[in-house]
Amino acid sequence: MILNKTTSRIKEPKITLVGAGPGDPELISLKGMKAIGNADVVLYDAQVNGALLNYASEKAIKIYVGGKSDNEPFSQDAVNKLMIDYALNYGHVVRLKSGDPFVFAGGFEEVDFAESYSIETEIIPGISSAIGVPGLHKIPMTYSNLSESFWVLAGTNQKGDLSSDLYVAAKSNATVVVLMGIEKIQEIAAIFQAEGKNRLPVAVIENGSSQQETIKIGVVDTIAELISDHKIESPALLIFGDVVSLHPSFFRIRDFYQLIDQE
Amino acid sequence: MILNKTTSRIKEPKITLVGAGPGDPELISLKGMKAIGNADVVLYDAQVNGALLNYASEKAIKIYVGGKSDNEPFSQDAVNKLMIDYALNYGHVVRLKSGDPFVFAGGFEEVDFAESYSIETEIIPGISSAIGVPGLHKIPMTYSNLSESFWVLAGTNQKGDLSSDLYVAAKSNATVVVLMGIEKIQEIAAIFQAEGKNRLPVAVIENGSSQQETIKIGVVDTIAELISDHKIESPALLIFGDVVSLHPSFFRIRDFYQLIDQE
Repeated sequence: MILNKTTSRIKEPKITLVGAGPGDPELISLKGMKAIGNADVVLYDAQVNGALLNYASEKAIKIYVGGKSDNEPFSQDAVNKLMIDYALNYGHVVRLKSGDPFVFAGGFEEVDFAESYSIETEIIPGISSAIGVPGLHKIPMTYSNLSESFWVLAGTNQKGDLSSDLYVAAKSNATVVVLMGIEKIQEIAAIFQAEGKNRLPVAVIENGSSQQETIKIGVVDTIAELISDHKIESPALLIFGDVVSLHPSFFRIRDFYQLIDQE
Repeated sequence: MILNKTTSRIKEPKITLVGAGPGDPELISLKGMKAIGNADVVLYDAQVNGALLNYASEKAIKIYVGGKSDNEPFSQDAVNKLMIDYALNYGHVVRLKSGDPFVFAGGFEEVDFAESYSIETEIIPGISSAIGVPGLHKIPMTYSNLSESFWVLAGTNQKGDLSSDLYVAAKSNATVVVLMGIEKIQEIAAIFQAEGKNRLPVAVIENGSSQQETIKIGVVDTIAELISDHKIESPALLIFGDVVSLHPSFFRIRDFYQLIDQE
């Protein structure tokens, strides 16, 4: 097929979902970075590090579409429609999402919507905060006899209720990572307390892998107070499990409880 | 402090654990790539894509340390000792591991051992196969009312036994991802069958994100046969959960069971 200059400029619409990783702009994948460089339009979330937009070409259109912690976030419907609109009119849209596109991020909704318009989609995974942020603090997901698995949950489901999976997770021996759970910390801690896990180690990490990062370590019984004392807010993640005891900040907590038990 | 040419050449020992991602060499992070470029020594696993070694300097020493599916893998003790030895003698050692260093990868054992020699360590997380490989096939970890969480397990624990967490996972509503479970597929499927989940959708992905990749989709009752018919071997991962029903290959399976039910 021979294309003349005019028709060759009509670009095939395409939508690429790119995981930006947990916050540090160097934690994006090479493939994700190249996709941004190749984009005609970048739609990006609130939690995406702005430095990543520097990989886009100067001509690329960059559109901020908010995030969950915004007062007025764009609805999933609004983002879906923007995405299609830009793809049909400009060509390659990169939808840049913090973490991984398929971990509590509405990624599949977007793929599904794009495919209903017969627009090609591609997924470029990212480092999920759930694994990467504890890892940066040398808290492993699994370790020797402390944990043989890990379970990742959101504090609340799409209706804003506590996820019923939390009750099963609190009974399990898995390392339990809770995203978007800070606002329900008292209810979540109560679920673990009901299982007698009052002294299970817990870490909370706010703004993981960014320069504003804060990490605090305690146990189930103290975590709600720690969060309120240190004014920790979303985005933050919680890690419940014995693997948290490997962090140096836990050593004096262990000593404290050993002293109490001796009395 | 003034250093003369001789003393400045004595490099400070350091060990950086780098997650290489699931297989595609472009799925490593920028930070991981830079660490390799800066390494005096790279110790790499069997499942790490060899193309990543091209990021290392020509002078860097590259050492293969095997992997779990080898007949004669290096033991964790042997790797630990090599790592220390090279760090003390050459400076910066990059320990390049497939996936993420802290997801069933012995990463913490290595950090712990290095720190016992007062050697500085750093973690650069990677895209875990558990999330990234299903994602590349547009299978999300969580989706709307199909799944509110995901649970990642290994088929067998360090003793070679089935992980007891599998029994709880099979009862849960989480998306269940099982790494290193292919050899125990009959026992694992039986655990889900005991919960009446005979028709729960299951995907198996061999050599995820590489050119030799294979994906097969079935249900709990058929997965063992699919694996044996298609001679699927390690490394492969299993995804149990309703999110697998979103994959186009599942549509005809759904139709088939609907026909059966109508009879």
